[in-house]
Parts: sequence; structure tokens; C-alpha cells
Amino acid sequence: MQVSNAPPADAARHADMVVVGGGIIGLSIAWRAARHGRSVIVVDPAPGSGASHAAAGMLAPVSEVAYTEEPLLRLGLASLSRWPAFAAELSAESGVDVDHRGEGTLDVAFGADDLAALSEVADFLEKLSLPVQRLTGRECRRAEPMLAPSVRGGILVAGDAWVDPRRVTAALLAALARRGVPVFADRVTGLLSADGPVRGVRCASGAAIGAGLVVLAAGAWSGSLPGLPPEVLPPVRPVKGQIMRLRGAPGFLGRCVRGVVHGSRAYLVPRGDGEIVLGATQEEMGFDTRVTAGALWELLRDARELVPGITELEVVDLAAGLRPGTPDNLPVIGPSGVDGLVLATGHHRGGVLLCPLTAELVAGDPDPGLVPLAALCSPLRFTEAHR
Amino acid sequence: MQVSNAPPADAARHADMVVVGGGIIGLSIAWRAARHGRSVIVVDPAPGSGASHAAAGMLAPVSEVAYTEEPLLRLGLASLSRWPAFAAELSAESGVDVDHRGEGTLDVAFGADDLAALSEVADFLEKLSLPVQRLTGRECRRAEPMLAPSVRGGILVAGDAWVDPRRVTAALLAALARRGVPVFADRVTGLLSADGPVRGVRCASGAAIGAGLVVLAAGAWSGSLPGLPPEVLPPVRPVKGQIMRLRGAPGFLGRCVRGVVHGSRAYLVPRGDGEIVLGATQEEMGFDTRVTAGALWELLRDARELVPGITELEVVDLAAGLRPGTPDNLPVIGPSGVDGLVLATGHHRGGVLLCPLTAELVAGDPDPGLVPLAALCSPLRFTEAHR
Repeated sequence: MQVSNAPPADAARHADMVVVGGGIIGLSIAWRAARHGRSVIVVDPAPGSGASHAAAGMLAPVSEVAYTEEPLLRLGLASLSRWPAFAAELSAESGVDVDHRGEGTLDVAFGADDLAALSEVADFLEKLSLPVQRLTGRECRRAEPMLAPSVRGGILVAGDAWVDPRRVTAALLAALARRGVPVFADRVTGLLSADGPVRGVRCASGAAIGAGLVVLAAGAWSGSLPGLPPEVLPPVRPVKGQIMRLRGAPGFLGRCVRGVVHGSRAYLVPRGDGEIVLGATQEEMGFDTRVTAGALWELLRDARELVPGITELEVVDLAAGLRPGTPDNLPVIGPSGVDGLVLATGHHRGGVLLCPLTAELVAGDPDPGLVPLAALCSPLRFTEAHR
Repeated sequence: MQVSNAPPADAARHADMVVVGGGIIGLSIAWRAARHGRSVIVVDPAPGSGASHAAAGMLAPVSEVAYTEEPLLRLGLASLSRWPAFAAELSAESGVDVDHRGEGTLDVAFGADDLAALSEVADFLEKLSLPVQRLTGRECRRAEPMLAPSVRGGILVAGDAWVDPRRVTAALLAALARRGVPVFADRVTGLLSADGPVRGVRCASGAAIGAGLVVLAAGAWSGSLPGLPPEVLPPVRPVKGQIMRLRGAPGFLGRCVRGVVHGSRAYLVPRGDGEIVLGATQEEMGFDTRVTAGALWELLRDARELVPGITELEVVDLAAGLRPGTPDNLPVIGPSGVDGLVLATGHHRGGVLLCPLTAELVAGDPDPGLVPLAALCSPLRFTEAHR
């Protein structure tokens, strides 16, 4: 990993932009800014180790949101359409294949109630002219032979895609290294400002980094940066997610498989090398990143009902991460209300999906058509509510 | 770990005894031989990493055997009685606390059938004058408050004890290092002999080690040592076991808890530091040491029914090991029928329990009362059957 532990040399102690947080959001912003010719510095105690490390990487705006959450769906669709170019450019520049795949999601149901709910999702997608296909149980199993025989039916959302988030952060770190963007393994402990605009950051090592713009992209930790007035701090909370990675043979599954099992949404995401990711819990546990027995049990119980054959697969990794949740489930992107400070956090379950869009909004030349979407994400919606 | 990778120096290329296998059995034999003043060399590609690494460490001769297997029970009881002195001497000599505990096993039942089966075990123990106490469900929960409310009753086997097998192998390696016994990280590829008695071993590194006695204690791999006639090779097969280690608080459980859940025997073993070991699967999978999704699911499902609160605990380790099983479930200990070669393998689920007894039988001054037990373990029972 291209991370420097050295405190910044004097020459590097100023940049156009300092990004606080080296997760998938912060790194995407830094990469976009660098490509637009700006000097950038990223600061993170452990780059690439946050929520994206424990993410499955589904780019599934439809399947991932309650279909009543139309603003979030529109954000997701806007970012999904940017992913093919983002992935291609990132892979070309970094030399890292991010395993971007687009075979869609098969969302299945076991009972009549679940089937009816899926049918409503399909109605909704058809209303939006999004591609969706209704499948019988037999058609589901023809599409994915490893599916449980008890599957009653499902819908195939052809537009859904997915990537390997660990490869994406590795690719972003490699691309930044090639562009000479420093990524400091340090922790930001405060902001530089003299009772006015933000002018940079101070680090745990003692280093101070001046910047024309500070981007706070520290995920679930974004709400606790010292030195900001409470109404400016984004109201993010950690939402714990635990995943399990299994070693399958390539072709074990052809696409993402999802379903409601025991009342919770379970999914299996296949990688190009045959790895299967089981996800993911949603737990309100504060800043707790322990992998727990109960979460593994639920992941295995649910995934086993969807695809019984996973029991034969080797367990290669367990991971827990903290997603930054917000009160309205929408991210917090844009000017903070304090001069020189921009926020880019609160992506909850959508950080991987939304990183191209977020980078575009924060780091240069956003498509003018994004203005209404950007307004939905404005941090000021909370600032005003707070006052 | 006190392991040398260097090929043996010329001076060390001969010993009174070479032990093939650095698991809990081989190391115990080497330690006993060294204490009796013999020069010893141990050879193992990865000492301490075998079946004992994935063992829970129950010293539970009664609970661990079908109570009809009286010979195995007698072996287990003989070894159990040796454990307190073995643990005390080993800890004193090595400076490593092996977490030897003796609070007994609580064996519980959920249904009337299981309760009746436990009652028969209790009858059997009483017939042998072994201490056993019959408990109601309420008494079980008073003894272990974390037990599931649905427990109907149980028996408390007060004589059962347990140790941490990883600490035992670490202690044995430390004790051997203090006594100057070399433990070579090498693989034995054949025996030195000139169409007659065994005179030593040949290693993958090319080193040859001469010895008056070769002890084959290579666990599940003991049956595949090249250069021996088939009737001399012990008929051991690998029986896979998978365990999970959780981080609990000290006092979460006060003793070993066992029960039949979904037709399989599940147990939880508490360590002094609060760690809880869940065990263990029994799988006939050949030389397969993958940790699998299905095994974790079964371990969690069963342990959760016995002690629901384990779901809150952190998962700290997953491990799989291969026990050396034999056709009659008894170990294979004693002269092989080939001069200069002694076998010490086939301990199946009892390697930790039986290591003091095995070391005594193989490496010096066995109690004369052990003669009938030793006869039960003789390798010649298979040699004769083979012929």
C-alpha cells in the first residue's frame, strides 16, 4: 500500500486540498481533484481500512434502498451510470483490476408475502422504465443453479453491478501514488483556523497542513472532529456491518443473489476469482468493530437458506466495519457552512456505489444536471434544523 | 517458539531417541525421555500445529467416550489421574501456565430421551464408583446461569478437568528447550535401516539422524511414512475437527458445558482468561484442513442453543485439525514389531487427555499396573489382523 508514515516534509505542508479520511470516499475525491490538476494531501491513520474494507461492493441502487426512498434511488442511479467510466479509468491508471461486473442482481422470495413485495418493487421499476424481469422459482434456479429448491420466485434487476471495494481502495491508493499525491498515515486532531475560515488541519504527529480547502470524509468518525461548532458537525452515527468471505469456485454464482430470510435481507456477492461475500448485518452498537458469534451465525443461517451449497466452502475472511448513517439516510455532501470546509460523509450502505458521484460533486466540474441532487445532500439541511 | 530451522549439526546427528512428530503426544514423550536422562531429538515440519492446535483440551474420559467403550474409559481415567502432576511439573519446568482446571463437566439435556440417556451414564458412573451428580434444569441453571432456559436437566461429572492444549505444546517446547532437546523444523521422509532394525530417520532437508529408538508420533500422518511394510504402518485415518474460539469475560462459564443438540454433541470450554472454545466437528474428509462455512454454522447453532449469550462474544480464532482415528477407537502405542521402532499415535479425540499416560508407556518407567492397559493399545493387534 502506498502510504507514508513520515510526517509531511516542509515542502508538502501545503496543498490546494486536504482530504481527512482515506476510505473509498476520501480517496475518490482526492483522485478526482488530482486529475483536475489540484495539489492534494490525504490524511488517515489507516487508509483503506474503514467501512469499504467490510463492504460487499454492490452497485445496486434499486435493490439496496426501500423503493419509497426515491431521492436516494436517484442519487444511486446517477452514480451507477458513472461507474463504468470510473472503473475503466481507475483500472487503466492504477494497473489494478477492480473486478467491476454487471450481471445484475437476482432478488428471490420464499413465501407469498415476499413474492408480493418483490412484485411491487418490479411495478415501481417498470414505472421508472428501469429494466426488470419477473421469474418463477424454476426460472430463478435455471439462472442460478445453486439456489435453494424452496425459492418461489424472484426478480432479475439487470442494471445492478458490483465491484471489489478492497480492490477499489487499493487501486485509488496506487493511482494517487502515481500522481504523487501524499497519503499520510496520521490522524487529524483539529482544524487550522483563526476564528474564521478553515485553513488546514493539525495532525496527531504534530504536523500542520495548510490547505485552501479541507474535505471531511472520515466516515462514521466525521461527527467527532474537534474544533467545529456542533451545528456544523455532520450528524453521522456508526452502523456496524459484518461480512464473511468464502472461497468458491469461479461460476459458483453468476450474479448477486439476495433475499429476505427470517425477516432480514441477506445477500451473496460473487467475485471473479470465485470468492463469495456474505453480507451484511446492520447493528447500532456505537464504535464497536468486534466480529461476533451472533453475526456470523445469522450470516451463515441466512446465506445457507438462499444457497445451501455455501456450507462446503472455505471461510477466508471475517470483517466488521462502521458505516456512517444519517438521520434521513441521505449522504452529507457539500459546503459545510464554514468557509474552507466541505463535508463528504454519511453514505451509510452506499459509499461504494456513490463514490464516483461524490467525487464529482466535491472535486470538480460536476454535471450541471446534478444540481437538484446535490441540493438533497447539502449539509445545511442539518445546520438549519439544529438552529 | 523454540524451534530450530537449521539442519542438525554433526554433533547432534545421533540421539538415544528420535521422535517423529512434534504434536502434544510427540513432545510429551520427548520431555519424559529427556527427564529420564536420554538424549532426544524431535523432528516436525511445524511443531505444535497439529490436532492439538485445534483441540479444546477437555480431560473428560467419561463424557468423551460412549460409556460402553470401557477399555478407552480405563485408559482415560488412568491418564486423568496423572494430569495434575504432569501439569504442575510441566508448568514449573517451563514457566508456562497450562490453564489446568478441574471444575468438572456439566452435561445437559433438552428432551426426555436425552435426559434418559444421561441418567444411564450416571448409573454407569455410579457402578464404577465415579463421582456424579444428577441435576434438575433449575439446578443446572443455578450452577451455570448462562445456560438456556430450555435445559431440562443434566449430570455434573465432578472429576472432569481441562487444559489449554496450545499452552501445553508451548510449555512442552519451552521445557525441551531448557533441557537442550533439539526440535528440528523438518519433515521425516524415511527411516534408516539396512533390511533390519530401524536405526534412525532421514529428513526432507537431507539430514540423517541416527537413533537407538525411533518413535513415530506423527498423528494422522503416521500411516504414510515411506519405507515401512504395510502391516507395520498404523491404520490411522484423519478425522477432521473444527473449533471456534470466542472472547468472553472470566466467569462467563464456570465449567465445561456439554449437550446433545440436533443429534450432535456440542461443548463449550472456558479458559481462565474468559475465552470460550466451541467444539467440535467430526468429519471424514481426508487430509482437508479448510475451515468451512458449514462447520462454523453448526458450531454456532449448537452452542447458541446450549448458551444463548455466546452470540454477544467476539470471534477470535477459527481452526481445523486432523485427529488420528483408528478402526477400534483405541490408540496405537508400543513396539511396532520392527526392532527400533515404537508407535504412539491413533489418539483420535483423546490426545490431550492421554499424553501423560502415553509418555509414561513409551518413554520410561511405566507403572507396572499399566501392563493390561498397555496391551490394549499394542500395535500388534493390527499387524496380526493384517497378516
